[in-house]
Amino acid sequence: MAPPIVAFAGSLLDRADHIRADPAALSGLMDWRARLLKLDGLMPTIGEMGELGWGTLADAAPDAELVFLGLIDGKGCFAAVPDQGATGPAYANPAIWQAMQLLSPGDLATYGVARALVDWHARHRFCARCGGGTRLSKGGWQRDCLPREEGGCEAQHFPRTDPVTIMLVEHSGRLLLGRQPRFPPKAFSALAGFVEPGETIEEAVAREVFEEAGVRVRDVRYIATQPWPFPSQLMIGCYCTAENDRLTIDKTELDDARWFTRDEVRIAMMAGPDGAMQDELIPFAPPPPAAIAHHLLEWWLAKD
Amino acid sequence: MAPPIVAFAGSLLDRADHIRADPAALSGLMDWRARLLKLDGLMPTIGEMGELGWGTLADAAPDAELVFLGLIDGKGCFAAVPDQGATGPAYANPAIWQAMQLLSPGDLATYGVARALVDWHARHRFCARCGGGTRLSKGGWQRDCLPREEGGCEAQHFPRTDPVTIMLVEHSGRLLLGRQPRFPPKAFSALAGFVEPGETIEEAVAREVFEEAGVRVRDVRYIATQPWPFPSQLMIGCYCTAENDRLTIDKTELDDARWFTRDEVRIAMMAGPDGAMQDELIPFAPPPPAAIAHHLLEWWLAKD
Repeated sequence: MAPPIVAFAGSLLDRADHIRADPAALSGLMDWRARLLKLDGLMPTIGEMGELGWGTLADAAPDAELVFLGLIDGKGCFAAVPDQGATGPAYANPAIWQAMQLLSPGDLATYGVARALVDWHARHRFCARCGGGTRLSKGGWQRDCLPREEGGCEAQHFPRTDPVTIMLVEHSGRLLLGRQPRFPPKAFSALAGFVEPGETIEEAVAREVFEEAGVRVRDVRYIATQPWPFPSQLMIGCYCTAENDRLTIDKTELDDARWFTRDEVRIAMMAGPDGAMQDELIPFAPPPPAAIAHHLLEWWLAKD
Repeated sequence: MAPPIVAFAGSLLDRADHIRADPAALSGLMDWRARLLKLDGLMPTIGEMGELGWGTLADAAPDAELVFLGLIDGKGCFAAVPDQGATGPAYANPAIWQAMQLLSPGDLATYGVARALVDWHARHRFCARCGGGTRLSKGGWQRDCLPREEGGCEAQHFPRTDPVTIMLVEHSGRLLLGRQPRFPPKAFSALAGFVEPGETIEEAVAREVFEEAGVRVRDVRYIATQPWPFPSQLMIGCYCTAENDRLTIDKTELDDARWFTRDEVRIAMMAGPDGAMQDELIPFAPPPPAAIAHHLLEWWLAKD
């Protein structure tokens, strides 16, 4: 099967990376035709037709750092770095959930790119190597420490994307799902964890499942990825087989983890997160459509 | 097919992540039995039998920051953060090439984890958010900005792993390979590029191939991953099909890119990088066995 269309993928932006390193081309784009993404801090602005709000570069503060997102219909699209970056996850923010429901897939993806980039800039104004100030460069796809004659160390820093594995674990037709302490009541989803230095995707999947649920897995398969801009993860969806079904749950990571039958998963997915919470006969509340875990569960129900 | 065993994967370390957050358990491990990886800067030390060199914690400088790599045979394994991190790629370093040839796969993987981590610490002594000093925490799997009462902002920072796509592109039975300016003479390998914020793996593959070679691709498939500790990449190996074979090469990225037949790839792989350079009848010099591109080419020759 082709990878599913996941939320935050499918931006219509032409990233036009040759422009980033070409100061003349970049400044040539920064005229009255250029579009500036309207952000309230890191939150999107949504128009009456459910579209992402854009203004002009005149809307930016005079000293704002501007990130070149790319081109849409040949026009330069920019976003301004806010004073503050995010300090926590965006899960609980109503404006984010509204955006996920109202925006078209392309608009949501454009917002995701912009959010990940300006948040990174806002949280990386200083050089991790020498502690000095840094400046936005390459249209916002880089930050540079100051030149040595100005007291800097000239290190270059790049926007960060953290690979995370998220996995369906099957044993004898049943699926292992867990719930993190921050989840709403009844919600269960796929286990997940960051890929660490020195691991393949397959090794990271096996380590995470063993750490969180005490089960050894084999036959790890890649299914799909999703960019997730809170703050900037690459969610790598996988499927694997457990050696047995005896769970040892790491209670510092998970409230609970359980095996669910195909029928239980099907019923929960049909009910959806809200329906499942209102009906006590539904065995659990599944992940919302914006999450890659939702697509992995759909993939699992459709396979065979 | 199962993913191939790639260099820098398959460490025998038990990462024992529950110990990282448990100061008492961690200090309990830091006794005379603990092992300290012998590093000369970031370079490994290799014993007479081709094994990775280890000492004891007494070998570390009194003020050295120590990273807990994990457990081998129940013993705590540590590495000390050097004064300087890497400032450039390690490709040209003879000690690295020697290590890749002499060390067992497990030892090479352990060195890779240690190198990626201590290099990250050496280049991240300051807080990117406020510019203040940071301290190693969680056994070296985190750095913390100072408490507010000591003038810090309390931000937490985590070791970084950058996802990179590396892809075989096929058209009518021929394979697209390119050469970067830094490659040795005659060397060609798979195209590659960083996954950017807001992209799936499949989108990143398509963008990179179009940027570097001007060709549209479809049917992107995941094949295998490799951790690559220079400085800390997750190499994500893919395979895809080109819509046509008309190349427009980005000369700022690539010296050259060409289509090679199955026979040309087979002959080059049989000759190996050194053999290919010495024999003018061999069409190109393939990537060395330590590179995931080598495994992708082997996979391609074996498939069908």
